[in-house]
Amino acid sequence: MSASNPGADTAISIPKKGTVPAIKLIMMPRDTNANGTIFGGVILSQIDLAAAVEAHRWHPGRLVTVAMEKVEFHRPVFVGDLVSFYTSTVRTGTTSVTVRVDVWAQRRQEKIELVPVTRATVTMVAVDDQGDKTPLMRRDDPLPLY
Amino acid sequence: MSASNPGADTAISIPKKGTVPAIKLIMMPRDTNANGTIFGGVILSQIDLAAAVEAHRWHPGRLVTVAMEKVEFHRPVFVGDLVSFYTSTVRTGTTSVTVRVDVWAQRRQEKIELVPVTRATVTMVAVDDQGDKTPLMRRDDPLPLY
Amino acid sequence: MSASNPGADTAISIPKKGTVPAIKLIMMPRDTNANGTIFGGVILSQIDLAAAVEAHRWHPGRLVTVAMEKVEFHRPVFVGDLVSFYTSTVRTGTTSVTVRVDVWAQRRQEKIELVPVTRATVTMVAVDDQGDKTPLMRRDDPLPLY
Amino acid sequence: MSASNPGADTAISIPKKGTVPAIKLIMMPRDTNANGTIFGGVILSQIDLAAAVEAHRWHPGRLVTVAMEKVEFHRPVFVGDLVSFYTSTVRTGTTSVTVRVDVWAQRRQEKIELVPVTRATVTMVAVDDQGDKTPLMRRDDPLPLY
Amino acid sequence: MSASNPGADTAISIPKKGTVPAIKLIMMPRDTNANGTIFGGVILSQIDLAAAVEAHRWHPGRLVTVAMEKVEFHRPVFVGDLVSFYTSTVRTGTTSVTVRVDVWAQRRQEKIELVPVTRATVTMVAVDDQGDKTPLMRRDDPLPLY
Amino acid sequence: MSASNPGADTAISIPKKGTVPAIKLIMMPRDTNANGTIFGGVILSQIDLAAAVEAHRWHPGRLVTVAMEKVEFHRPVFVGDLVSFYTSTVRTGTTSVTVRVDVWAQRRQEKIELVPVTRATVTMVAVDDQGDKTPLMRRDDPLPLY
Repeated sequence: MSASNPGADTAISIPKKGTVPAIKLIMMPRDTNANGTIFGGVILSQIDLAAAVEAHRWHPGRLVTVAMEKVEFHRPVFVGDLVSFYTSTVRTGTTSVTVRVDVWAQRRQEKIELVPVTRATVTMVAVDDQGDKTPLMRRDDPLPLY
Repeated sequence: MSASNPGADTAISIPKKGTVPAIKLIMMPRDTNANGTIFGGVILSQIDLAAAVEAHRWHPGRLVTVAMEKVEFHRPVFVGDLVSFYTSTVRTGTTSVTVRVDVWAQRRQEKIELVPVTRATVTMVAVDDQGDKTPLMRRDDPLPLY
Repeated sequence: MSASNPGADTAISIPKKGTVPAIKLIMMPRDTNANGTIFGGVILSQIDLAAAVEAHRWHPGRLVTVAMEKVEFHRPVFVGDLVSFYTSTVRTGTTSVTVRVDVWAQRRQEKIELVPVTRATVTMVAVDDQGDKTPLMRRDDPLPLY
Repeated sequence: MSASNPGADTAISIPKKGTVPAIKLIMMPRDTNANGTIFGGVILSQIDLAAAVEAHRWHPGRLVTVAMEKVEFHRPVFVGDLVSFYTSTVRTGTTSVTVRVDVWAQRRQEKIELVPVTRATVTMVAVDDQGDKTPLMRRDDPLPLY
Repeated sequence: MSASNPGADTAISIPKKGTVPAIKLIMMPRDTNANGTIFGGVILSQIDLAAAVEAHRWHPGRLVTVAMEKVEFHRPVFVGDLVSFYTSTVRTGTTSVTVRVDVWAQRRQEKIELVPVTRATVTMVAVDDQGDKTPLMRRDDPLPLY
Repeated sequence: MSASNPGADTAISIPKKGTVPAIKLIMMPRDTNANGTIFGGVILSQIDLAAAVEAHRWHPGRLVTVAMEKVEFHRPVFVGDLVSFYTSTVRTGTTSVTVRVDVWAQRRQEKIELVPVTRATVTMVAVDDQGDKTPLMRRDDPLPLY
């Protein structure tokens, strides 16, 4: 939202060229809301999936989302935008992984424009087949993310 | 998530019979994630829409989501669950409306079971056609919600 | 359809404020047909689900739709409309439940406008795992609908 | 539904080999309901579209659905079934076209099995840009259906 | 694409009236790309399904797509177009079926217009439950296609 | 398909860690076919979008797909796989861009497994608002891809 005034604590990290996002996709007309811009739910859905991609590096098994910290939306996203979800691990516990997700949109315009959309911090917990908490499989050496 | 321990400040309000939700829908197989439970993004998407339904009572025009406060997921949602999104207005400003959304799932079982899923607080801002902030149309008398 | 002339026998029941619908949802751009209005199939789909919600009060098990009585469409539905599906049980048999569904749309306009869309009568039958008819689990005391 | 007993008046016309359906498509996992069979709403949606295909032969312009006569569901449809929607014009008026739709499913099994699913009669009305009734463009010579 | 110049070897076979397509469906707004025309992926998806319909005549079991020959797109497809996918078997091997798919769109206009969209040649292989190649069930007498 | 034997000319380029894909996304249950694996159409759809992402580096305007060279599917893709679409420009002409797309899937398993899925070569042409060919905006200095 152009009218918002994000403070320092919610600044979205600028992606370095060559940083590999967890999720990256093109926004389509079916992703719009009644205003004609991209539906916030589509962005929130991919934030959830991006956090899971990062968390799977520590636990390539079943994970569930237990919390998402405050999310601010700084700019609208449009049809045709290429949206990238960059992730980093904030902390790992015995059974949980907390992931930060920074979302940027690349507009399809003559001059390149990379705009910050939002960021979120998501906590996921490893669970067994009964849905009970279970220790992370990999405590020290996360799998690489291609 | 059964493993979570929601504190008092995140307790989900128990819906009174006869309270009309903003959104209410059946979860379908196409809404699942790789675990076979309902994808968190589907719930977050409907929270966003439910907040818009409540906010439209104060501004039956264009609104954008600017922030969603911390969300905790207390229980998984399953295919076939009937999920209701109850809303209440927390506060209104000159141009913004803050809405609380309480989410409950009704399981399809012999004995009725109504389970708390999550709650969220969403802030929406009224905008004009250029996307700039604009005052709420109705400051004192919100439209009823059927 | 504005041109239609619904007779008394197909009048859509006016929802009382505080009546809880079985299904209630916002229409999105992905729900449109080539005319730009909401695709009739989306409404028919939710009528089918709303009937199932009501029928599950009598049989919280497997149900299949066997018939839908004549449906008339009185008004178009638009993107952004909040559409509610109100249900009532018309009759129950040994293995079947017949449900009436009244559909209303709330337009997003300055002055509230609640418009009748359609009504339908749907018959569902309880079936076992082989798909054969089976008696309703609850003949006298339907589960409440939240 | 295997338990139903369709009378003569609702018999589904047997498609002759070489008859071209209005719509024909494969059922996918995303089309299922909570029972794992194909969601009735998916079938009703395509009935609506099939009727529009037939009605466009008489009016290659804007049409809206005003009524669907009683629909009975005779058999469940499964993932992987090839479902065909055959249409015929029942009658045309000054501004309306009434279309019959017969639905058959071809199961993917060693021995071919073509099963009747349902039939419906749909009435569509030609409308202008304001949504008001307008005469059919072609009263005597419908366009061919490829 | 109007600018393309398809040579003789990629000419799309003209459908004879009365030829039954493998797949036939109406294009909806949810199928569009950012340009507002139908997303190429929607057409490619249905080509894949149409080839499977034809291949199932020879092997009414599990099949996987192993290759799609060069595909050229000759014309854009629009919302509301009725698109038909005609198939013919090019050759069968011990475990594989090669299918040609010709795609035509019928525009919704006063004067009928049937436009060639694309053609493709798809090879499918019969596989067992482990995903290993297995002989086609029917080598000489394919099932009919209704 | 495990049974295929890809020759040198169709070898899929191994992604170097740190190479940024054009598109990257998680496969969901709604993307499956009747076999329970990911529907080939979903992969083909994203190949088309990935090629457009690369082509937009040379022409940040309207582009249409005119051809896709032979595509071979080497391995099935499963629900939960993280699939990346890597692109490189093969050649640019006055009005066209030819893009190679290499597709890899990262399985969610204890030991990382990166499997080649398919590769494709897609040609896109820049078009104006009438759909006629138009010169590429950027002939020598493509926009960077984040």
